[in-house]
Amino acid sequence: MAEFSATSGIPVATIKYYLREKLLPAGESETANQASYGAAHLDRLRLIRALIDVGGLSVASAHSVLEAIDSNASLPEAFRVAQRSVSAAIEPGDLEPADLASVDALLEGWHVSPENPGRLAAARVLSAFRGVGQTDERGWYARYAEAALLIATADLDEIQSRPDRAAKAETVVVGTVLGDALISGLRRAAQEHVTSQRYS
Amino acid sequence: MAEFSATSGIPVATIKYYLREKLLPAGESETANQASYGAAHLDRLRLIRALIDVGGLSVASAHSVLEAIDSNASLPEAFRVAQRSVSAAIEPGDLEPADLASVDALLEGWHVSPENPGRLAAARVLSAFRGVGQTDERGWYARYAEAALLIATADLDEIQSRPDRAAKAETVVVGTVLGDALISGLRRAAQEHVTSQRYS
Repeated sequence: MAEFSATSGIPVATIKYYLREKLLPAGESETANQASYGAAHLDRLRLIRALIDVGGLSVASAHSVLEAIDSNASLPEAFRVAQRSVSAAIEPGDLEPADLASVDALLEGWHVSPENPGRLAAARVLSAFRGVGQTDERGWYARYAEAALLIATADLDEIQSRPDRAAKAETVVVGTVLGDALISGLRRAAQEHVTSQRYS
Repeated sequence: MAEFSATSGIPVATIKYYLREKLLPAGESETANQASYGAAHLDRLRLIRALIDVGGLSVASAHSVLEAIDSNASLPEAFRVAQRSVSAAIEPGDLEPADLASVDALLEGWHVSPENPGRLAAARVLSAFRGVGQTDERGWYARYAEAALLIATADLDEIQSRPDRAAKAETVVVGTVLGDALISGLRRAAQEHVTSQRYS
């Protein structure tokens, strides 16, 4: 354990916490007081840290997505679990039908279930835009949908390139959880770029 | 005040809190115990709620971005304040030079300052991807950068269509703070769509 902590750079107390919460499988027992932790444990520990520290997942959400990787979950199911892990719980009943209709117009021709958490989150944003008097007369939101489709297509291409189900599911999880921060980060860089082109 | 609360649907205690924190300007005094709140106050209150409730801003961050709208801040300056309000504080020194170099390769040809919070956030994500063994052999990240540029261009087109500096700055703020949730929501819907196309 002390060695595992030194190799990974993660404190023993944190590792014990992850073991207790079953994020990390137990090491292989060597004696009553010793267990060995191999490369697979180190990989899993790094994944947990990325999901929690960079992706902002709770321990409970991290547990769900790791389970989706380890189980025989299909890719659509892995996506559902991963998407739920990064989405605020929004009840369709809390949204105005007009805002849901606006989102559905953006998604026209897409195969999206009514309970998709992204559909509900987008409706909530459109409601907020509407509430502060922001209008959409030039197809602003449709251009977001177009960009979203490019990103999702890139995600699926990447996932399909992975060698097996577990590796594909891991890319589903990592991509879903960390991809939001990548696109929002690059968006801020792009905003500075386009602003400097137009205003200097 | 009671009337203002009834019209806006926001509790008196919350309104008083926003007045105290100077998010909301004082009403016009009519008598010692009465002030009147007009349409501009209602608009501002709705904006505050959108930034805090949907955008997840702290009261301090909301104060900064409202100040950027009300002051004579230029659009690049409004962007800087808005971007900071939604970005985790990351020190360039905490990042690996290799990850910053990877981000800079994605931003090649873009005019982006080294301290852009999106550049640093993106480097942090690439570091996390690298830490969990996710590779980028097919230009996955470059496709995110391409999508980010589409979104930023749509943002700037929309901002330029607004009639005056204050309206432009308000769209900078609202778009920056709420746009992340729009793109990530639409991305989840698009992931379901593309997955269902490929796996059913």
